[in-house]
Amino acid sequence: MSPPDAPARVVTLTTDFGPGSEHVGALHAVIVAHRPDIARVDFAHDIAPGEVRWAALQLARCVSLLPDAVHLAVVDPGVGSDARRPVAVRLRSGGYLVGPDNGLLEVAVDEAGLSAAVQLDPAAVAGPVSATFHGRDLFAPAAARLAVGAALESLGPAVPAHSITRPRVPDAVVGEGILAAELAGRDAYGNASVLAGIRDVARAGLAEGDHVSVEVPAGRHPARMTRTFADAEPGEMLVHIDSHGMVAVAVNRGSAWDRLEAHAGQLCCITRSGFGSPDAEARR
Amino acid sequence: MSPPDAPARVVTLTTDFGPGSEHVGALHAVIVAHRPDIARVDFAHDIAPGEVRWAALQLARCVSLLPDAVHLAVVDPGVGSDARRPVAVRLRSGGYLVGPDNGLLEVAVDEAGLSAAVQLDPAAVAGPVSATFHGRDLFAPAAARLAVGAALESLGPAVPAHSITRPRVPDAVVGEGILAAELAGRDAYGNASVLAGIRDVARAGLAEGDHVSVEVPAGRHPARMTRTFADAEPGEMLVHIDSHGMVAVAVNRGSAWDRLEAHAGQLCCITRSGFGSPDAEARR
Amino acid sequence: MSPPDAPARVVTLTTDFGPGSEHVGALHAVIVAHRPDIARVDFAHDIAPGEVRWAALQLARCVSLLPDAVHLAVVDPGVGSDARRPVAVRLRSGGYLVGPDNGLLEVAVDEAGLSAAVQLDPAAVAGPVSATFHGRDLFAPAAARLAVGAALESLGPAVPAHSITRPRVPDAVVGEGILAAELAGRDAYGNASVLAGIRDVARAGLAEGDHVSVEVPAGRHPARMTRTFADAEPGEMLVHIDSHGMVAVAVNRGSAWDRLEAHAGQLCCITRSGFGSPDAEARR
Repeated sequence: MSPPDAPARVVTLTTDFGPGSEHVGALHAVIVAHRPDIARVDFAHDIAPGEVRWAALQLARCVSLLPDAVHLAVVDPGVGSDARRPVAVRLRSGGYLVGPDNGLLEVAVDEAGLSAAVQLDPAAVAGPVSATFHGRDLFAPAAARLAVGAALESLGPAVPAHSITRPRVPDAVVGEGILAAELAGRDAYGNASVLAGIRDVARAGLAEGDHVSVEVPAGRHPARMTRTFADAEPGEMLVHIDSHGMVAVAVNRGSAWDRLEAHAGQLCCITRSGFGSPDAEARR
Repeated sequence: MSPPDAPARVVTLTTDFGPGSEHVGALHAVIVAHRPDIARVDFAHDIAPGEVRWAALQLARCVSLLPDAVHLAVVDPGVGSDARRPVAVRLRSGGYLVGPDNGLLEVAVDEAGLSAAVQLDPAAVAGPVSATFHGRDLFAPAAARLAVGAALESLGPAVPAHSITRPRVPDAVVGEGILAAELAGRDAYGNASVLAGIRDVARAGLAEGDHVSVEVPAGRHPARMTRTFADAEPGEMLVHIDSHGMVAVAVNRGSAWDRLEAHAGQLCCITRSGFGSPDAEARR
Repeated sequence: MSPPDAPARVVTLTTDFGPGSEHVGALHAVIVAHRPDIARVDFAHDIAPGEVRWAALQLARCVSLLPDAVHLAVVDPGVGSDARRPVAVRLRSGGYLVGPDNGLLEVAVDEAGLSAAVQLDPAAVAGPVSATFHGRDLFAPAAARLAVGAALESLGPAVPAHSITRPRVPDAVVGEGILAAELAGRDAYGNASVLAGIRDVARAGLAEGDHVSVEVPAGRHPARMTRTFADAEPGEMLVHIDSHGMVAVAVNRGSAWDRLEAHAGQLCCITRSGFGSPDAEARR
């Protein structure tokens, strides 16, 4: 335990370990054992197991709120295999990312800019490393060391910035009155996040008050473009720009994700009513 | 980031965002960005979406444990609409409440007493405010500012104390051997909290050891008045005074909520066996 | 509130209260009310209600990560009955355990060694104690007092070390190519933890790459001994040594617990294919 002299950086934690799980507890225990006064923020732990892309989006939001923190992220279905490298990254914002190089870090890197990256060297960072819990044995110790002032370069050999794995986040496809994009994931209310933003909505000419249909593999649902949940009737489906500037499908006081029978990665088509749908036309 | 000179107040968080969700993480991130040494307490995040009344009870319990903390509470189905005002309240106990004025704050206000209230002015409190996440954009910044010593009056214009929305918590109806009251909610074990207290039980003349029936819309169940869970057999239903002085229906090592097929807001009738129920009589 | 002079010990929390539940929040509130700068670690709160043995294993892992912390553990189906004593224990490692003496503490005591134990005296520790929430009313106050330097002996009368309840953790039964042991519990991914360790696997002569069958009451499943999840195909069942040195059954990117239809306490037989199973033989 190093002496608590200089103030430590904040450490944030984003994982698919499940809320309240021992695996989350172990990350905290490792950080606190390093120095008890490190401020820790549980950013998100309810990510579906292995949903790297959804986690990457959430991590980027965390970085935007705390640009100079150390961001520990572990969504790591390939743990212990050679399929991905353990890395730490210094951002231009002054903060750090620590986690597996499997696409998890790249949205944050894209947004905040990368200034340097290293591959974590177990011998330099920590003690013995298990085959299946690099979060506890490698990533958390690395994050704790960065939080108390260790140099990035002391944690392992440099790797080229361009070698950091890019997630394949597909762009939205947009036409007049039509927007097609992938479903990214759900929040705790069942709001469905769509990989499209405020500009895509503008390009499609969709506007508040428009009646639309939301089509996913399991079916098609009438909805309305609104500014907020309460602009729809209880039980009504709505499409809005969420608090991150992304398109989201919601049900006022209900779960859109469940009603859509949605899965992350599915295509979601939002069409202004009257476009190629006679019954939608009629409804208008 | 203000300098960490004067000790900050504790900030507690009570929401329906779901445990481990990114929305909870965002509140923490905003507070920590304000000042990393603010002690934060996750009081409850597993409240069912939009269950304002149940949340109001839990918030009041939190205030009783930490009377001089800043209590941030966000259960806000009307977010972004004009249906409710964002407010902050100074309690006579010295603490603060921050959240939507939709009934969420009122049990705590009733118990702790109000000394002043303001409507939060986004321009005074924070930067840009999204339509759907006032927790992150307005309430958390306000709570953080109060925690580090800002004056309540600096956050917006004063509103009259009597204008704070009152929840409609109905009183229990009590007769000799009969108690009828609403189901307030469930805890993680499935214990069902009833909106009646130790005095209602005394007025009804119900006592430890009594055999009772518990009637809810989905059916009627035999139970026993006990002091603690272990006084009932495993799998037996029991009625007891919980650790907050409220009536609770439980099943020893099981879930009363599931067995009752209960919903918050339903009426729950607890009747001493022999009162108007021949089969209960016979069972006795 | 005592003055924050001397640094406080870390307090960890392990319960079956459910993530994000008000009961967890109440423990934190009590500790913070005692002194806000006590560093708190939520170790695990997703333990199935009343699963004392599984909790005891997790607590021991927490102690191994933070040997000199105060470990507050509450999995307490017998709360309020005379069936178990509330105790606090000083470990040889310098840390403390606080919780019910119902087997919950004993794995940690076995591993870390006990130097002294007391039965908590409500009058010495805290104010009034409810019948059903000793976590809030007795255990958390005791943990907070130990964290800020109170003497163990000030919390109640000494009890003999040998009187601390032992959990009945059965040994694995091992033969050449066969290992039979109890299922201890599941993690958030659905990995099934088996009460057997790396030495049992060695004694059974099982090795990486072996084809095995995993038999539980609900059925028999083919699996492979691997080092890590990614060594199996997606959807394939695997048996590996987990990050705690224990045997675990997993499904790569799936839930072994669900596929096995498992329950804690059930017997799990891992048999090298070809041992008494013609079809397994054939498959080899």
